[in-house]
Amino acid sequence: MSSDPVDQPVEGQDEPVHQILPLDDGVTAPWGFSAGGVTAGLKGSGRPDMAIVVADDVATASAVFTANRIQAAPVTVSREHLLATGGRARAVVLNSGSANVCCGPDGLQLARDAAAAAAEALGCATEEVLLCSTGVIGEPIPAQPYLDGIAPLVAAADPNGGLDAAEAIMTTDLVSKESAVHVTDDEGGSATIGGMCKGSGMIAPSLATMLAVVTTDAPLDPLVADGMLRRAVEATFNRVSVDGVISTNDTIVLLASGTAVTPPSPTAIEAGLHAVLADLAIQMVRDGEGAEHVIHLTVSGASTEADALAVARKVGDDNLVKTAFAGADPNWGRIIAAVGAAGVDIDPTGIEIAIAGHVVCRGGVKADFDRAAASEAMQAPDVDVRIDLGLGTERATFITCDLTHGYITINAEYTT
Amino acid sequence: MSSDPVDQPVEGQDEPVHQILPLDDGVTAPWGFSAGGVTAGLKGSGRPDMAIVVADDVATASAVFTANRIQAAPVTVSREHLLATGGRARAVVLNSGSANVCCGPDGLQLARDAAAAAAEALGCATEEVLLCSTGVIGEPIPAQPYLDGIAPLVAAADPNGGLDAAEAIMTTDLVSKESAVHVTDDEGGSATIGGMCKGSGMIAPSLATMLAVVTTDAPLDPLVADGMLRRAVEATFNRVSVDGVISTNDTIVLLASGTAVTPPSPTAIEAGLHAVLADLAIQMVRDGEGAEHVIHLTVSGASTEADALAVARKVGDDNLVKTAFAGADPNWGRIIAAVGAAGVDIDPTGIEIAIAGHVVCRGGVKADFDRAAASEAMQAPDVDVRIDLGLGTERATFITCDLTHGYITINAEYTT
Repeated sequence: MSSDPVDQPVEGQDEPVHQILPLDDGVTAPWGFSAGGVTAGLKGSGRPDMAIVVADDVATASAVFTANRIQAAPVTVSREHLLATGGRARAVVLNSGSANVCCGPDGLQLARDAAAAAAEALGCATEEVLLCSTGVIGEPIPAQPYLDGIAPLVAAADPNGGLDAAEAIMTTDLVSKESAVHVTDDEGGSATIGGMCKGSGMIAPSLATMLAVVTTDAPLDPLVADGMLRRAVEATFNRVSVDGVISTNDTIVLLASGTAVTPPSPTAIEAGLHAVLADLAIQMVRDGEGAEHVIHLTVSGASTEADALAVARKVGDDNLVKTAFAGADPNWGRIIAAVGAAGVDIDPTGIEIAIAGHVVCRGGVKADFDRAAASEAMQAPDVDVRIDLGLGTERATFITCDLTHGYITINAEYTT
Repeated sequence: MSSDPVDQPVEGQDEPVHQILPLDDGVTAPWGFSAGGVTAGLKGSGRPDMAIVVADDVATASAVFTANRIQAAPVTVSREHLLATGGRARAVVLNSGSANVCCGPDGLQLARDAAAAAAEALGCATEEVLLCSTGVIGEPIPAQPYLDGIAPLVAAADPNGGLDAAEAIMTTDLVSKESAVHVTDDEGGSATIGGMCKGSGMIAPSLATMLAVVTTDAPLDPLVADGMLRRAVEATFNRVSVDGVISTNDTIVLLASGTAVTPPSPTAIEAGLHAVLADLAIQMVRDGEGAEHVIHLTVSGASTEADALAVARKVGDDNLVKTAFAGADPNWGRIIAAVGAAGVDIDPTGIEIAIAGHVVCRGGVKADFDRAAASEAMQAPDVDVRIDLGLGTERATFITCDLTHGYITINAEYTT
């Protein structure tokens, strides 16, 4: 886990009866998993491009997939497999270098063949293999190198191989992203949750995509795992943005091995899962394409949580707000204009806005603040923005990054 | 009108029975109007910052205002005035340098005082004056220079003053924006429609806003004028984007003097209005902050027009699509991913995409195309993108620009 763990209690919990200990580890932190990465030759750079996460025995599996109507072949195949098994899996095979989307029947067949090859190497059913791909849209994965890479990949899986796997799924990512925690409850139960992810645009279809694999040694029923994963994703990955774009390949897989000897309460497990996903999500924003500042938005005083989230999301996706933060400009006018554009009923005279601790707008008009000091405070790598709507008691948070020349360079100058 | 008039027939018209002749003129092209600009000292740059458009006698007036819930004082006052008069006005007073929004009761009072001052100078009712402002949000307009500027502004109004007015409302605009046409029908009727606008972000709240004044000598009933204006705005200004952000001040005013001797059919008037707004809208995109390419999107083969427009708007607002065009990269994967993210039911296997005349995707997969030739064609200042969904017969168009380093520079480096 990174040095600044995000330890958020589960919503509705007054008094957590568990402790969350950050670990410096990743997807192989829990018992019962191994992982690895190999270079199969899918990337021009010659860097590692295939990864695997394997459970020692068939594990409970759940996944959340992209909401994009254009879905990659590995998404289609993974959906089918989870339905066929009722939420069980042995392994997740991931590749960077090509997204295997918009590649027609050949792409779909290649995904099926890859799952079959992995199943053969692992000695499990084909339906017990899940797949993730990331890379260029519409460019086929080189079939033979991909299929030839699978046996060595299975062979490379190791109980200490989490970092190798995390590195093999990077595309425009500058750093690999791992997180892990150990949770204990006051009944003496404990479990470990670990994960890895990649993504530096919320998506950049030609270069990046959000993929995550999360593991735990806690025993989870498939339906329970599904609910926990969806709630944790909604509160973490669904509340961050780099460029507001939805990938064709986004996938988050949870594998639960059930190998923990004295597992903790479901509440404790969910809190640990939430902590790992929140940590991975913020690592992704911090490594956002061209990002120089992470912006932590809190919208409070809303009539409903949905209103608060709509406002936070609109502000967090606004190019003018994001460029103002790139320039350390406490330009609250851009923020209040985005609040007004969120489609939510507001009362301008009730709005208060604080940037990096400086109240810049009060009662919907400019507050008396020190521009130079506010600008100075905005140069920190993490900047808090608090928007109070003055209407109610509901709130939501959202994390985004600034929009800089670096984003343009990465995404425009990657030309033919 | 610019050298490449956009001459679009009114929807539903099979055979236009009118001709549209582009004129090299602007808001004072129609009979019965004068306009002008002065330097009142509202801008630090010392450039002209107040403009007026005046009808010789009280004219039919209609306006479309921003959908933002945060609305500027001039928007509030103009709404009130149009309601009070039932759709009549004598003049529109515009200023750049400050948006007069989020300035509390003082800002509202200043707008009322400005309207009263203009009414006094013109000898009309205060309610017959409409107001528009553009500039920084939350920073008050310097009251005395603004009010002192009004009498000289009224005195400066001239039947040939359209360009002066267009120049006085510029902010980050690099060029002033005027358009005018003469319409004739086959019954011998004719009228002139002229206009001006400013805006180089669809909004950049601290620097820009979309403002337009359109005039005609055709006689129009207020209700008819309102319908015509709303339809024309929906088909033009509402189908362009620079950065997808909604201003607090956006306003489009139509003034109809009724001075044309033999006015043409309503259909001809509406076609002329549509042509002027379409031309102004495209001039605005062409002058978009940092824009190097104008992207003309056409989505066809949709089940409904609303679906076609939703897809076109999603593609047109997508930062990754826009950066790909900045790099002349025929990266159709980004386009199809945006299509899939539009929330519209689609069939990936029916999608065809052409960029600058090159079919890059057919049946939802990569077409056989010459990448280098497509990239070369994308270096033109105007690039056509055609997306056929293969589902039905409905279509929509949308115009956007690329996202470049220039946009970041303008909006990030405008710091405290």
